[in-house]
Amino acid sequence: MATVDFWYSIGSTYSYLSVMRLPDVARRTGCEFRWRPFNVRHVMIEQNNIPFKDKPVKAAYMWRDIERRARTYGLSPLIPAPYPLPGLVLANQVAVLGAEEGWVENYTRSTYRRWFEQGLAAGEDPNLSESIAEAGQDPVRVLETAGSGSIETALAESTEEAMALGIFGSPTFAVRGEIFWGDDRLDDAVAWAQSA
Amino acid sequence: MATVDFWYSIGSTYSYLSVMRLPDVARRTGCEFRWRPFNVRHVMIEQNNIPFKDKPVKAAYMWRDIERRARTYGLSPLIPAPYPLPGLVLANQVAVLGAEEGWVENYTRSTYRRWFEQGLAAGEDPNLSESIAEAGQDPVRVLETAGSGSIETALAESTEEAMALGIFGSPTFAVRGEIFWGDDRLDDAVAWAQSA
Repeated sequence: MATVDFWYSIGSTYSYLSVMRLPDVARRTGCEFRWRPFNVRHVMIEQNNIPFKDKPVKAAYMWRDIERRARTYGLSPLIPAPYPLPGLVLANQVAVLGAEEGWVENYTRSTYRRWFEQGLAAGEDPNLSESIAEAGQDPVRVLETAGSGSIETALAESTEEAMALGIFGSPTFAVRGEIFWGDDRLDDAVAWAQSA
Repeated sequence: MATVDFWYSIGSTYSYLSVMRLPDVARRTGCEFRWRPFNVRHVMIEQNNIPFKDKPVKAAYMWRDIERRARTYGLSPLIPAPYPLPGLVLANQVAVLGAEEGWVENYTRSTYRRWFEQGLAAGEDPNLSESIAEAGQDPVRVLETAGSGSIETALAESTEEAMALGIFGSPTFAVRGEIFWGDDRLDDAVAWAQSA
């Protein structure tokens, strides 16, 4: 089966589009997606690559572009969503734990839905606990575990792995060492995976 | 007829893709494209938006992405092309004169072909004079006129017009005040133009 690694950070705006449409794309194409949360903020600071901060014209376009594209996918976001996210690291620590335990996709979709469709920032309450609960997990246990040193290390290791692949932004789709950056490269990544 | 303003700077790497495929897209869709050269470097410095300088990881991806996409359009660029272009301003002054006189599209395609397919920087010789000649013009006359104050002013005015539209990068497609940034938004722009 064609497999695509879906590298993303909760906190990335364009990743909303991929997070919401990935299940449909998987069904339609038969591709399997591996959800790989990482810390894009760490990568961007490291690489001096700051896409929207202090760039109001580009940021305004980004929201408009997401709004238009979301509509073509049948989504109805409240634009602009809260941004940037103070709780980015915690949001992704929870995702890393979810990846280890098998509920990462449900949690990520729940938290993006609250963030982009109800205006509630991911990585903090009420979004955080509600999304963990919606993924079938106990928020108290998850938040205690997600804040532990081993999950901190796991997120750092995933982030290093992403950088080793040449990843510099979220979302990025990786197929056999080839990377495709942006929700608008999802079709290219699937085609690459299927051309094996 | 559906009309799309094609805002671009010779010097932008991704614009190569649009410059080369626009005639086909126009034929296929019936859309009319108005070629609008502007000075993207001025806009980027003004807006503190520097996409690739000192960002080697992102720059490496950009070349790979252009190479892959070019292939899907049937193009065979020599990657990487010389970058950045020292002659960016002159290259676009010539384009502005070409827009006034009706040979902008031929000149732009000729100069991009030499830049991306023969490794000869646009905005300087031999690329510059050869591309002007290929567009049916006398290089001596064109270079004299393109360096004049009135063309300098015309390029500055086009650049101001682009910024007033919210444009921050090249290529950008503009349709009735709506802007679409990137070669990968060309289809969206055409759809918007045709949904009038």
